[in-house]
Amino acid sequence: MAISLKSEHIPRATIERLATYLQVLDTMRKDGLEVISSEPLAKACEVNASQVRKDLAYFGEFGVRGVGYYVDFLYEAIKDCLHANREWRAALIGAGNLGKALLNHQEFRRRGLNIIAAFDSDPDKIGSSVYDIEILPPEKLGEKVAELGIELGIITTPPEFAQSAADMLCESGIRGILNFSATRILTPKSVITEHVNFFHQIYSLTFGITLAENTRA
Amino acid sequence: MAISLKSEHIPRATIERLATYLQVLDTMRKDGLEVISSEPLAKACEVNASQVRKDLAYFGEFGVRGVGYYVDFLYEAIKDCLHANREWRAALIGAGNLGKALLNHQEFRRRGLNIIAAFDSDPDKIGSSVYDIEILPPEKLGEKVAELGIELGIITTPPEFAQSAADMLCESGIRGILNFSATRILTPKSVITEHVNFFHQIYSLTFGITLAENTRA
Repeated sequence: MAISLKSEHIPRATIERLATYLQVLDTMRKDGLEVISSEPLAKACEVNASQVRKDLAYFGEFGVRGVGYYVDFLYEAIKDCLHANREWRAALIGAGNLGKALLNHQEFRRRGLNIIAAFDSDPDKIGSSVYDIEILPPEKLGEKVAELGIELGIITTPPEFAQSAADMLCESGIRGILNFSATRILTPKSVITEHVNFFHQIYSLTFGITLAENTRA
Repeated sequence: MAISLKSEHIPRATIERLATYLQVLDTMRKDGLEVISSEPLAKACEVNASQVRKDLAYFGEFGVRGVGYYVDFLYEAIKDCLHANREWRAALIGAGNLGKALLNHQEFRRRGLNIIAAFDSDPDKIGSSVYDIEILPPEKLGEKVAELGIELGIITTPPEFAQSAADMLCESGIRGILNFSATRILTPKSVITEHVNFFHQIYSLTFGITLAENTRA
């Protein structure tokens, strides 16, 4: 499917909501739903219907007048919009608990994010395998990135090693980094970096709960 | 420290940025930095300085004219703003890979999120221990929530079990849910729910990389 972008300045919040729509549509597909209108889709995603229409309008017209959206079609169209309709090969640095959990994350593989190499500096881990992926020493990173056509780096190291992991990934020639470590990392502009910080949601919870309590009191 | 809220309508994006400021300030504290002005703080957080000042202004005045911010003071003040300056007790449902990684997440404990009970419906897991926490059958949830004063629920089940885990958590009397499962869950309004969807960042990466490539081309 060829998607022509209506604007190059897609708000970040739109991309995040598209990821949510995709998750909800995926569940709907699995449940056998064939058609949905924007109202119930929006409700399931906890946004309003005009927001759904506005977000989709950046990419084109996907609804059918008087029908709504065909679930399968919209799912594939949004994947196209996000360039998530192909395999993205990734290398992971830091084979601790979180790293191992991500190496075996069913949803990653199902949605095209394929972690095909893992690295750790711990001599006890090097040479062992996690879900059929051999843990390699960091010195092998550049070689593997070139050999396997790896485009993304995933950092799951302790915070104190995150920046050096990022530096190595940038040197290796990858194009984007997903940082799960509990610290910020700095990268050159040419390497797109996304931070996954669980505390965004944790603090939204603690703030929201306390506010709700104080409002009731 | 007593923080008086200037407005009850704090944008969600502000809460998320405060979580980022906190992470950066925490690193700065560890590095021994005592004072910082809004420009370098903003730069480290990848926002602009006026954004930092605006976000903080919802809660009060934390800077010192001609000096900047005292790192320790601002760190504690933001924790107070987010109600993250106390222990929050949590129960986790779904002791798979991701669940186990979160049970041992050093940063959670260090920042006051204390997962003190874990549940799984798999008979092979029930009775075993993960990092000194015994895996219990889901039927025990209500009892434990009351006994241990648990306020938060964390869902790390496969997507097909997430809604029933959410229903059980809501019945047990917890006040907020952190949903790590790869599907949306529905909860009554009285239970605040936050979804952690790694694909928000993954798709921001795939979209950003492709856009940068097409722009260069």
